[in-house]
Amino acid sequence: MFFNIILAGGSGSRFWPRSRENHPKQLLNIDNNSSTLIQGTLQRLIPLASVEQTLIVSNHNHADETCRQLAEVNFPPGNLLAEPEGKNTAAAIGLAAQWIAREHPSAIMGIFPADHFIGDQVGFQKIVQEAQQLAEQGFLVTLGIRPNSPETGYGYIKQGDPLDETSFKIERFTEKPDAILAQKFLKEGGYFWNSGMFFWKAATFLDAMKRYMPDSYKIIEGIDDLICDNKGKFSYKIFTDEGKKRYASLPSISVDHGIMEKSRQSVVVPANFAWNDVGAWSALDEILPKDPEGNIISGDVLAIDCQNSILQGNHRLLAVLGMKNIIVVDSEDALLICDKSRAQEVKKITEKLKSDKRLESVTSPSVDRPWGSYTVLEERENYLVKRIEVFPGEKLSLQSHVYRSENWTVVQGQANAEKDGESFFLNINESIFIPQGVRHRLSNPGTEILILIEIQSGSKLDENDITRYQDIYGRTSEG
Amino acid sequence: MFFNIILAGGSGSRFWPRSRENHPKQLLNIDNNSSTLIQGTLQRLIPLASVEQTLIVSNHNHADETCRQLAEVNFPPGNLLAEPEGKNTAAAIGLAAQWIAREHPSAIMGIFPADHFIGDQVGFQKIVQEAQQLAEQGFLVTLGIRPNSPETGYGYIKQGDPLDETSFKIERFTEKPDAILAQKFLKEGGYFWNSGMFFWKAATFLDAMKRYMPDSYKIIEGIDDLICDNKGKFSYKIFTDEGKKRYASLPSISVDHGIMEKSRQSVVVPANFAWNDVGAWSALDEILPKDPEGNIISGDVLAIDCQNSILQGNHRLLAVLGMKNIIVVDSEDALLICDKSRAQEVKKITEKLKSDKRLESVTSPSVDRPWGSYTVLEERENYLVKRIEVFPGEKLSLQSHVYRSENWTVVQGQANAEKDGESFFLNINESIFIPQGVRHRLSNPGTEILILIEIQSGSKLDENDITRYQDIYGRTSEG
Repeated sequence: MFFNIILAGGSGSRFWPRSRENHPKQLLNIDNNSSTLIQGTLQRLIPLASVEQTLIVSNHNHADETCRQLAEVNFPPGNLLAEPEGKNTAAAIGLAAQWIAREHPSAIMGIFPADHFIGDQVGFQKIVQEAQQLAEQGFLVTLGIRPNSPETGYGYIKQGDPLDETSFKIERFTEKPDAILAQKFLKEGGYFWNSGMFFWKAATFLDAMKRYMPDSYKIIEGIDDLICDNKGKFSYKIFTDEGKKRYASLPSISVDHGIMEKSRQSVVVPANFAWNDVGAWSALDEILPKDPEGNIISGDVLAIDCQNSILQGNHRLLAVLGMKNIIVVDSEDALLICDKSRAQEVKKITEKLKSDKRLESVTSPSVDRPWGSYTVLEERENYLVKRIEVFPGEKLSLQSHVYRSENWTVVQGQANAEKDGESFFLNINESIFIPQGVRHRLSNPGTEILILIEIQSGSKLDENDITRYQDIYGRTSEG
Repeated sequence: MFFNIILAGGSGSRFWPRSRENHPKQLLNIDNNSSTLIQGTLQRLIPLASVEQTLIVSNHNHADETCRQLAEVNFPPGNLLAEPEGKNTAAAIGLAAQWIAREHPSAIMGIFPADHFIGDQVGFQKIVQEAQQLAEQGFLVTLGIRPNSPETGYGYIKQGDPLDETSFKIERFTEKPDAILAQKFLKEGGYFWNSGMFFWKAATFLDAMKRYMPDSYKIIEGIDDLICDNKGKFSYKIFTDEGKKRYASLPSISVDHGIMEKSRQSVVVPANFAWNDVGAWSALDEILPKDPEGNIISGDVLAIDCQNSILQGNHRLLAVLGMKNIIVVDSEDALLICDKSRAQEVKKITEKLKSDKRLESVTSPSVDRPWGSYTVLEERENYLVKRIEVFPGEKLSLQSHVYRSENWTVVQGQANAEKDGESFFLNINESIFIPQGVRHRLSNPGTEILILIEIQSGSKLDENDITRYQDIYGRTSEG
């Protein structure tokens, strides 16, 4: 019996401005394929175990959007567990192991990051089989990617004594090396890139955790007391108040350091398939096809005499003239221009934005909600114009605002507006005015997506100016 | 008696995306000073002649906006002449000379481009006085800037025999040279940059035009039959239908080639003041102060490890990391990224956009109108969201639309909406719906700028879908 575990708690600040704190890398269609990274990961894993035997550990901040994306590939929301806060890989894997071990302690778990690229499905499956066999024998198995360049963006694993013809004991894990050390590793041989993929029996892992991380083990031991069903649109698992408190007390430790380095059962299986952790914009060079000038271009871009550049346009025209080796990524509210060799430093930008308390590091003008999304079209001191999209059958909370009035105009689909207890049906072109303080509720009674333009007006225009009376998604804050 | 003539017909495609065909360089606040280039030019010239003795030759496409900008510095709109189409400098100057010569044939005219930079007001005025004295003696005078670098972006003037201690006959005019030739000019000496500034008596010029450009002279001779008053908000001079026809038949010839090169009365007065024709974005390097890293930054820009770059942000955040010698200019609908050494080639972009029939070469999302302006906030297939700003006391035309309905919501100021003959007064937060086909008219009865959000909805959303019944600005097309 085999379970896929997808770790989807990452934030991926190096893909700013397309990734944001509330919309991390795994939820992006970063290579402009038709699927997002997490959708691609799930599709890659379905041949290994059914969706029913696939668990996802995510973060409560993006659990709704994760479920929405995965619903498109028939993933059951009850198999997603939303951590109240990230506590690194040992805790997330421990949770998943507890969950599985309740019924299937000897089942094998494969741990897969949600946001990596694997270019060779056949090669991947073959190596997974080898790893599963070793896991069956009671080993803690990781896949080590054979390095083909002195990459400084990856951690390395040094092989120890051979276990059989194809795998090795692990001598040690090494953090991301500098360029000189990485060169040395490559020359010396016996080093692998740390892929973040692991295989073991649930019981084997829990035994190791009990031994090497006893305090952490104790905290997550009675998992059924920690979690409950989310009451919103998607019934994924969330933490109870008691569970949140206990989880908050966990140390933040990676499974590499907390368990793999300490156990003598740890082994590495070398892997040759094309793999990339998609750690920065420059990774697209390894993943996507290029034009004859070496450019990777998408969106509304006019490139004249440009070479070896990654140019991602958005709704606006991007005109680029005479540039080499640059990365340009446009988004609705922010634009990145970066020398390609410095793509790893994009997090310097998000750090600076965060310290300046700028919203561009956290959210994009388009914000996902369980009922749909909204996008800010214009924000001025006294008014704000939003496009609101509501999925068919969905319903916002019954709410009121202290400081602002709202004016809604339907531009696509049909709306039902509840205002001070009365119900109004709105077709295209029809509007309704919601004065300050009046209880109101918006829903989409139709079968197509409802789009309306909301004009907020008032002395304080703030998402927190919301008093919520009823909500089918069980929310107490947020719009 | 002295008249300033400001030539303001240019289009300045090399300042795209801030300049557009319908909003050329002279109307831009390109250096982020408080005034636009044409406002700065007028202010520089006021010490030479009063606004009443200043004439502006502009193009009918931007005459309204030019008048609006110059109204802020009390320029009388009746002194602006809007050409129906550009016919190069000889024709524009000929018009101005005819205009002046009707009453003051012996008055001296100084010709000044609207969009140049002059850094030394005192030095400028001193040279102008020298030029005026020579003009008084019947010469055709131009100012030649002493070159301090082998600039390939300027035309050159080769001096001939000396006329007096400070000025020279002109041997010849040279087009923009290549780098080798420019080096040679600089080494050889006796060359000046062609400043585009000229001084002569109106009668002297008209005599020369009659002699060297007799066909052109004949066409513009009876100027009073050619022009009339504009009936819009600003009563500048426009061409009659007969005038337009005659003007269209003029050849397009510069005053340098048409007259200066041919006349033996042509002289050049060398000038030392800081001058720049602001011919491309890179010119800002010569004009504006830099930060310690050599950057010129304005707007919402986060620059990390950038050097010698020109970074102009707009409403969105521009994050630039590790770049050198680049130009980045953001605008609402288009963004330019360009190697600084290739700033002169920006027109390649506008040419390509034009050949692709893309609007971004012609207009910006913010469009000036005699009554104010509008800005497109979002455009989709079936709806369009605009911010409309109306100046106090102004009034749009009485109009109707065949294909679209409109919904107006006031977010600042007060509106008067006429709808099917009835009048509605709208305060902040109030809306009105204008169905397809219904005659309507918007005006601002208040004392502050009116801002309203217009939502257009319909099967065809096109500025040309407008039937106009009455218009205080005398327009028959346009919104």
